[in-house]
Amino acid sequence: MSAVFKQHVRKLVDVSEEELTAILPFFETLTPAKKTNLLEEGKVCKYDYFVVKGCLRLFFVNNKGVEKTIQFAIENWWIADYTSLQLQIPSEFYIQAVEKSEVLAISVSDRETMLARYPKMERYFRLVHQKAHAAAQYRTRYQGDYSKEELYLHFSRSFPEFVQRVPQHLLASYLGLTPEYLSELRARRIS
Amino acid sequence: MSAVFKQHVRKLVDVSEEELTAILPFFETLTPAKKTNLLEEGKVCKYDYFVVKGCLRLFFVNNKGVEKTIQFAIENWWIADYTSLQLQIPSEFYIQAVEKSEVLAISVSDRETMLARYPKMERYFRLVHQKAHAAAQYRTRYQGDYSKEELYLHFSRSFPEFVQRVPQHLLASYLGLTPEYLSELRARRIS
Repeated sequence: MSAVFKQHVRKLVDVSEEELTAILPFFETLTPAKKTNLLEEGKVCKYDYFVVKGCLRLFFVNNKGVEKTIQFAIENWWIADYTSLQLQIPSEFYIQAVEKSEVLAISVSDRETMLARYPKMERYFRLVHQKAHAAAQYRTRYQGDYSKEELYLHFSRSFPEFVQRVPQHLLASYLGLTPEYLSELRARRIS
Repeated sequence: MSAVFKQHVRKLVDVSEEELTAILPFFETLTPAKKTNLLEEGKVCKYDYFVVKGCLRLFFVNNKGVEKTIQFAIENWWIADYTSLQLQIPSEFYIQAVEKSEVLAISVSDRETMLARYPKMERYFRLVHQKAHAAAQYRTRYQGDYSKEELYLHFSRSFPEFVQRVPQHLLASYLGLTPEYLSELRARRIS
């Protein structure tokens, strides 16, 4: 399991096998079953999660009681409520396993200890967050520019495996479509 | 001018006056006049910008020719198209001075040299991007939950100085409201 994480770190920073082996014990390994909540609204987000296998999602329940997914994390992605994590205040989000997953979890205090001992990992996390920040900019751009249909087409062209894998009602929630409209779009593309 | 930047770095990381003095020459100082473009669509984003004084905005022109603002940066905020900056590919955004501003600009190659020499700054940028990533999560949450009116009220309660300062048509564009609806909301609050 740790091989996936080691490879991801090595892709971004120059770190030795010995250092990686010393870094790994800062993480706990979790194997949440499908639909397990790793974070719930009103609780403090205690861990930053790295997906080794499977898929997690970050969602909130809106004032009409409807779940709205705002982020997915598949292999090699990190996910947390970073406001709640950093400030240790209650979260307004849920984090849930979309499918049975394998996850590395690091608490905010273990992360601090690890970063103090292995400052190279600051660069790793800087690149991870910079990439997430960059993705959020383009997501906002496309949501403000594209029609619902164009948004779906753009997304399915950019992330084809993802569209195959994520349950359609969650994908619809992420893209801001009704599940009915999404299946209409998919049917139209296939025909 | 550099005092603002030094203070911001010191707030986030433990760095000496000597180190800060050695870091500053990696930046260029710019003083764009109101409406100056620091980045244009189709060009590569060459600099990461720190606002010392004034206000910059990141926007795109949608397929109907309308400008849509997706981020503002006032004092102590960084702004760039981080996809274009990191990959050195053409941008789909503009960055423009909302008012006459004072800005520190660092090129991607100077930033790399600086980070290699002063690895503490990796932590600084990690915290900056983590905060931006966190803000994007909550922005998406509120946009998916609040009515247009609630969105404006939430924003004006959270960032009162900001609402006073940014031209109303730009604020409307950022919040996804028409300028007419925004002035109606403001009038209703005042009365």
